[in-house]
This record gives sequence, C-alpha cells and structure tokens, in this order.
Amino acid sequence: MYNRLALAISCAFLAANPAMADQQVVEKDLRATAQNLFQPIPTAEQIITEQNISNDKIELGRWLFFEPRLSASHIITCNTCHSVGTGGADNIPTSIGHGWQAGPRNSPTVLNAVFNAAQFWDGRAADLAAQAKGPVQASVEMNSTPEHVVTTLKSIPEYVEFFQKAFPGEKDPVTFDNMAYAIEAFEKTLVTPNSRFDQFLAGQSALEQQELQGLDLFINKGCVACHAGQNVGGQGYFPFGVIEKPGANILPEGDKGRFAVTETAVDEYVFRAGPLRNIALTAPYFHSGQVWDLEQAVAIMGTSQLGHDLNDGEVKAITAFLKTLTGEQPKVEYPILPPSTRDTPLPKPM
Amino acid sequence: MYNRLALAISCAFLAANPAMADQQVVEKDLRATAQNLFQPIPTAEQIITEQNISNDKIELGRWLFFEPRLSASHIITCNTCHSVGTGGADNIPTSIGHGWQAGPRNSPTVLNAVFNAAQFWDGRAADLAAQAKGPVQASVEMNSTPEHVVTTLKSIPEYVEFFQKAFPGEKDPVTFDNMAYAIEAFEKTLVTPNSRFDQFLAGQSALEQQELQGLDLFINKGCVACHAGQNVGGQGYFPFGVIEKPGANILPEGDKGRFAVTETAVDEYVFRAGPLRNIALTAPYFHSGQVWDLEQAVAIMGTSQLGHDLNDGEVKAITAFLKTLTGEQPKVEYPILPPSTRDTPLPKPM
Repeated sequence: MYNRLALAISCAFLAANPAMADQQVVEKDLRATAQNLFQPIPTAEQIITEQNISNDKIELGRWLFFEPRLSASHIITCNTCHSVGTGGADNIPTSIGHGWQAGPRNSPTVLNAVFNAAQFWDGRAADLAAQAKGPVQASVEMNSTPEHVVTTLKSIPEYVEFFQKAFPGEKDPVTFDNMAYAIEAFEKTLVTPNSRFDQFLAGQSALEQQELQGLDLFINKGCVACHAGQNVGGQGYFPFGVIEKPGANILPEGDKGRFAVTETAVDEYVFRAGPLRNIALTAPYFHSGQVWDLEQAVAIMGTSQLGHDLNDGEVKAITAFLKTLTGEQPKVEYPILPPSTRDTPLPKPM
Repeated sequence: MYNRLALAISCAFLAANPAMADQQVVEKDLRATAQNLFQPIPTAEQIITEQNISNDKIELGRWLFFEPRLSASHIITCNTCHSVGTGGADNIPTSIGHGWQAGPRNSPTVLNAVFNAAQFWDGRAADLAAQAKGPVQASVEMNSTPEHVVTTLKSIPEYVEFFQKAFPGEKDPVTFDNMAYAIEAFEKTLVTPNSRFDQFLAGQSALEQQELQGLDLFINKGCVACHAGQNVGGQGYFPFGVIEKPGANILPEGDKGRFAVTETAVDEYVFRAGPLRNIALTAPYFHSGQVWDLEQAVAIMGTSQLGHDLNDGEVKAITAFLKTLTGEQPKVEYPILPPSTRDTPLPKPM
C-alpha cells in the first residue's frame, strides 16, 4: 500500500519534472556503462570464504602486521607506513624509515591492495606475500633480515605455537616466507566495500548530480583507460607524462619507475596506474607524493596523461566522483603481542 | 550436592596431606597481609562509571592517542612509545622520537598509569592530562606545538564536531588542554584487571607455591616498602641506589632524576618507584632501560635498594610472583581517522 502510494507520487512528480526523468535515464545508461568498466569491492567475509583463508593465518598476520620486532630498531611495523587508521597509507610525501631516512616513493595504500595486478609503484612484486618481504629488508625501511625475523619469532613460544596452527603439517613453519604468507592473509581482509560508487553500481541512486557528471567525464575524457576494474586502477603500467611531462618536483628525473624492473627503454618513467579506491583519504598523491590537493592531481592527470586542460567545473566534478570511492574502512583490533624472551635479539636502532 | 561432595573430597584429601593444609594456612595468612598492602585493578567499566567519563570523551581520546598529525612529522603518535599491543610501552631502552633522536629515559607504560600518584619517572606531571602535553611538545619526541595541534584539529571538520560533542557547552572546545583531557579519558580505560595476583587477593587459589613464596619474600624482604598499593609501585619517590649505587650504565650520572623537578639536593638520583603491574611485558627495565632480564632487575633491586644479596631461589621466586601481575590487556580498536583538508598544516619531518 505504502509502496504503491510512493510510486504514484513519484510518477506524478516525474511527469511534472522532465529534467529529473532525464536524469534517471542518464543515470541508468551511465550505470550500464560503468558496470562494464568497474567491479565492486567484496566484503572481507566473501574473500575469506572464496579463497578459503584460515582464521589462524589471518590472526597471525594481524600480529605480524603490528609487530615492531620485525624491524631492526623494534619501532617500525607494517602499519607504520600502511596505517589502517589513515586510509592504509602514511599520508606523507615519502615514508620515513630506519634512521629517519626518507624512502624514494609515496607509500601505496594497503587497503584493497589484494585487487592490484601487482604490488609497488613499479609492480616489482607479483603479490602481497612477495611485497611483504621487501620493506622488512629495505635499509631505508625496517632494515631487518630474514635471519633476524626468524630468530626473533622462534625465540617467542607464542609465535612458534601460532605458526604451527596457521601452517599445519609443516615441520618447520616459522619461516620468512610464512611470515609473508600470514601478512598477506591479513592484508586480504583489509578491503573497503560498500562505497557510494559501489552502491551506485549495484543499482542504488547513491550518487548526486555532480558526482554522476564526474563519473561521465571520468569515462568519456579517457581516465578510465588506465583507471578501471575493481580498484579503479592498479591493473596496468603507463608512462607518467604520456602527453606532457609534469614538473621535476612531481616526476623526479632520478626515479625511472618500471625501467628499474624491466631495464627496457620503453619502461622509462612508467608506473603502475594508481588504484583510486579511497583516494580522498590518502593525500599526498603520485609516486613522488608532492601534490596534496586532489583537484590539483586531477588537473595534472588531465594535462599530462590526456592532453586535456580540464576546466574548473570538470575538475570539481571528477573530484566529487573520486570521493564516492571511499568505502567502509576495516575495523582492526590492535593485537596483544607476546613478550620477548632471553633469546629474542635486542633492538639495533643505530 | 556437587559442592558438598567436592568439599568432602577436599577435606578428606587435606586430612591425608598435611603439607597442603599448611600451604592453605600460609596462603590465607599471606592473603590477609597482602590485602592490607595491595589493591586490585578495577575494570574500565568500573572506572568509567565511578568517574562519570563520557563515551564521547573516551572515543575522541582514542582518535587522538593514535593521531600522527599531532606530531610535526605526522608519523609519531602516543601509541608509538606507549603501544597498547606491547604492554603499553615501546620496549626499547629509551624512546626514539623526531629525527630518530633517542630520548633520555625508558618509556613508562600507559597501562594502569591512572593509578600512579604522578606521571613520568620524576613525577613532574600531576596527572595524565598534564603528562599528555609533554611528549607532544618535546623536541626529541613529537616536536610539535600547541598552535600546530589546534590549527591541525580545527582544520578537520570531523574533529571540530567531535570536540563539540566531547566538551558540550564550551564555546571554543578545540584547545590543547581539551586534547589532553580527551587523551586522559581514553588512557583511564587502559587498565588490566583480573591478573592472577588480583584473583588471589579476591580469595581464589590462583597462585602456585613458588609465586606465593615470591610474594612472601617481596613483602618480608622489604620490596613492598616502595612497591605497594594498587599499582604495586608508582606511589612515591626513592633514591635509586639507597644502599649501593648500581653501575653507571644502569644509573647514568647525567640524569639526576627528581632533582631536576625540585632542585633539592636530597632529590638527586631520586625516581618514582616503578609500578610493577604487567612488568613481565615491559622489558627493558629501570629509567635507563639497560636491563633486559627481569631476574637481573630483581637482583639489582636487592643489592641497591635493600642491601640483600638475594640468592638464586629468592630471585626466581620473586620473579615468578611478579609475572602474576600481568592482567587482561585492553582491547582497542584502531580508530579510523578523518582525512586532512586544504587547511591542515603539512608535515615537517626535517
């Protein structure tokens, strides 16, 4: 009864308001186009079920993600640069690591990272487990070694027991590789479903007029050529400055991107297209982390990648659309870590 | 019926086992003595109800406790040095702060800190709110200023709204003082009730023979003269090395302790007696953080404070007792922090 009444009122209103009827047509067409280009973010529960990830592995990964003793100094954790409280990143230009050294690139978000085709700005790690081993050993990040990690974890009985549970049947489960697999399992649960954009994809009228216009521009101006799929990016490699190189502060000459991985001339200044999910939470932008304003980042992409000087209204609309990509942030309980023992290596901060 | 049967069996067993009957007498007497010297840790719920702390204030404090933008670099939080995952401390000799500078003293645990008579190793802050303002401004810690904090928080609409809710009726609630009051409110919930020692105080037979012996020694050798009350310490100031000064690595000459606060000669090398709750989780020990082993710390206290060369069995028994002071660790959900805006000051890591 109520629904019929609502429908009647709605139809009467539409009849008297042709502009809104048009908008609904536009929204419907745009949704059909968008559904071909983008896919929604699933819930953590869906991923856990589909990939059959054990709770023990996820829980062990949560411990390790917050474990400062993986670092030489005992004060840096995965969460230091990929904080679950601030969009899965550290929100400074480039991360600061061991000895207060600044790293070479902006920290990519860990949120939804499982949906990227590869990890790091240059895609040098095939998956999250391969990625996790990098910062632990990098001298400008955690400055540790696989040996230090394994000795540390084996010195703590609660970790030995937990690795046995998480990797059942393995004779020697406390390994650097298994550390990485457990962290990967936890990171797979760090997803942000149910953004307003995903609600729109699912058929709800969740976007406002300016946001719809922004989505339309995002598709038709060509942004979607690099930023599509589940993560609205993160799938392929593209030269930064394909049309016009941005300034050296934004694209420093010394960082040749994927060239360092492939040593192929065409890969000079080639980077993985940034995944744009939750982009409103993770300024500053680009691999150099030198642009703090999302509108400015959109304008730079227009000139450098598309050869379009987007006007102010277009920039604002695309930015409004990008803000609808913010999903529900994962709720993470801080793990209570087991204490060190006499056999645990001491920190080496210096 | 079951209880009567259990009692009958228990009495029959006691009659046949005089040693156990003795132990129960000893335990009962020891409990009565201990109940006069120590008090249990209440639950967070009890504190919240008793002190009538609003949930809004606690929640805002949780955000701020994990808020890196309170620091100049945007990477240091309260939790960096007082991690809720590792006994409320950072478990390195002295904290590493802004620019990788090492601070002068070992980070005291935030857990149960509300029960200390005053804060810091020299008691220079009367309460947790006064304490919270220190590290934010210290150049070797967060290296920030009240102005930076207030400008930052006022630039983020979600914080402005949250301060209004947490401090209702105030015209200008976003202040440095209110930041500290909110952090204090959250920290008051970081308590660890229901340790085995507290179960023992409440009448349960929760301690084993060696632990009871350790408690007996702890009382009768005189440890209790400085380490009593709810926090088993944290109530008064005492010279470190009252009988015999430990080596300069443990008691560095340059740090004269409470003398810096009172400028009174008798306060040279005087420190607040460490609160011993959860002490098994927070190595290394003493204000200098140079002793990693709890047994070694107990032995040092024996010679330097009591003039007793405790034998190996005594050291082990006291250590076993101290391990019963580990309570239930607080469960803290990592807060999802609101993003910066164009008005938010940028990080200054260098």
